[in-house]
Amino acid sequence: MISSTPPLLLALDFGGTKLTAAALEIGQRNWLAHRRHFSPAGADRDYEYPAMLDLAHDLLAELGRQPAAVGVSFGGPVYAPEGLVRLSHHVAGWEATPLARWLQIEFGVPVAVDNDANVAALGEYRFGAGQGCPNLLYVTVSTGIGGGWVVNGQPYVGLEGMAGEIGHTIVQPGGLPCVCGRQGCLEAEACGPGIAARARLFLQAEPGEEHLLELAGGDPEKITAKMVSQAASAGDTLSRRVLDESAARLGLGLGNALNLMNPNRVILGGGVTKAGDRWWQIVRDTARANTLPEISADIVPAAFSDDAPLWGAVALAENLLGEAG
Amino acid sequence: MISSTPPLLLALDFGGTKLTAAALEIGQRNWLAHRRHFSPAGADRDYEYPAMLDLAHDLLAELGRQPAAVGVSFGGPVYAPEGLVRLSHHVAGWEATPLARWLQIEFGVPVAVDNDANVAALGEYRFGAGQGCPNLLYVTVSTGIGGGWVVNGQPYVGLEGMAGEIGHTIVQPGGLPCVCGRQGCLEAEACGPGIAARARLFLQAEPGEEHLLELAGGDPEKITAKMVSQAASAGDTLSRRVLDESAARLGLGLGNALNLMNPNRVILGGGVTKAGDRWWQIVRDTARANTLPEISADIVPAAFSDDAPLWGAVALAENLLGEAG
Repeated sequence: MISSTPPLLLALDFGGTKLTAAALEIGQRNWLAHRRHFSPAGADRDYEYPAMLDLAHDLLAELGRQPAAVGVSFGGPVYAPEGLVRLSHHVAGWEATPLARWLQIEFGVPVAVDNDANVAALGEYRFGAGQGCPNLLYVTVSTGIGGGWVVNGQPYVGLEGMAGEIGHTIVQPGGLPCVCGRQGCLEAEACGPGIAARARLFLQAEPGEEHLLELAGGDPEKITAKMVSQAASAGDTLSRRVLDESAARLGLGLGNALNLMNPNRVILGGGVTKAGDRWWQIVRDTARANTLPEISADIVPAAFSDDAPLWGAVALAENLLGEAG
Repeated sequence: MISSTPPLLLALDFGGTKLTAAALEIGQRNWLAHRRHFSPAGADRDYEYPAMLDLAHDLLAELGRQPAAVGVSFGGPVYAPEGLVRLSHHVAGWEATPLARWLQIEFGVPVAVDNDANVAALGEYRFGAGQGCPNLLYVTVSTGIGGGWVVNGQPYVGLEGMAGEIGHTIVQPGGLPCVCGRQGCLEAEACGPGIAARARLFLQAEPGEEHLLELAGGDPEKITAKMVSQAASAGDTLSRRVLDESAARLGLGLGNALNLMNPNRVILGGGVTKAGDRWWQIVRDTARANTLPEISADIVPAAFSDDAPLWGAVALAENLLGEAG
């Protein structure tokens, strides 16, 4: 039987503790079905993989259709050419998992797997804020700072699939301690927890400043980037300086990337990008000031928030069919 | 008449004050002819362009042959897709020169023009230390610090043709003053004049240290990177510390680039790379320490010294014939 229905694409996003499956017809821009599942604390691969399969099979059963290709975003380092998950920093048990092969056996169709930042970059390029920009850097500023490249209209991942690790470029030698063990990495200086860490440092140095501490119920350890952002908006000068310095560090890191690669555009996603106009202005001004005058410094917000990796997974699946056809 | 002689490639290098023309047959690795001319001080475009034409025509007359394609390396920013020279920072009058078109009219064959660092990267990739490395960064550490990328086996120049400006990434906020007007650029911290500038700073702070000053005839302004390197080799501790710190700054800048792009290899050329084993060791160790453990940090000396741009020009010319064929 020859069907005239367009092929169905299945997009999967393993996002730390959040699993998402969605499907659409090739060429369409709206989901036919979309399901999300939050893993319980302590969930490992043996929980997550079957949970994702359940999610996907339920969704396909609902549609009464099978996918023609599967695109997958994974929240951790991936060796994309083989769809091999190296590990997850957040979920145990994912070490050296041949995820693309497992899913290929499961669904009997081509599967592509890549790291979430790379996939989000591709999603923004194909469907979002990066359309028409064949060379772009996507940076997510959240609990950590990750990045992904599109170069010549294709995901660029480098030799070991690790390209885009802007979070671990040094912007302030001897600066704030980073989870990677070094000091002054962009991630440590500008991510959410880094903003909170800077606020605690400033409060230690200026114990008279109480506003932010009140928001945190008097416990400096409870300060979050969101509180800093709220206090800054409310006029708290210490919080403003904290946010300004964090934004300036990000701008410096972006300026370095712009000088190195001269991309068409930089796209910023992640929770910290909701910190307000002042934060955006300082990020942009500092990046511009640290980029050679001949080089564009076009820095824009992501079009997708949580769903950028999922749209990138759609693009991966589309690529598979394009190659097959 | 059908000739069975392989096509002749003409390679031209506008290298600041040094003009080079050379020719070889496609697929060969030895020059049939090679001519170099040093421009006098104050020479501008109106001197250099006709001088290069004379050089090339003399060379072709010597061979009694015409080229099938011309590849050109230019020492300054170039918009490569159109072979348009933006300017030279060293030679007056080159602003907005359609060099590819001029040469196309002159020789009646396809011409490609690109920036010297990009072209050197391509030369090392095709014929030198980067063979088999589809993603590589070439960095020249000399009077300044420039860089060029090969990505997926092709020159990558970015939106405005400016990619590779690693010299103006910041490695030490508030550091040594740079010609670009900022402070702490990699160029200012690690190029030849930067090494001399650091030596003067150290000498100011520790006026008892006389060895280096003696080499410079007692005049701190006459200190050069080469003197620092010689004094360091001879055991002068101040010179060693100067060289060590400069090498460490370069290593940090390279580590940032490795984290961002995860290339197969980084190739270092330029006079400062002759500073000795100790310099190389510190560059490599610092780069390794500043690169995520999953990312290779393979840093090697250039295979070509002065002739890397010329070999890259050969590769540009080869590409033209490949595309035409």
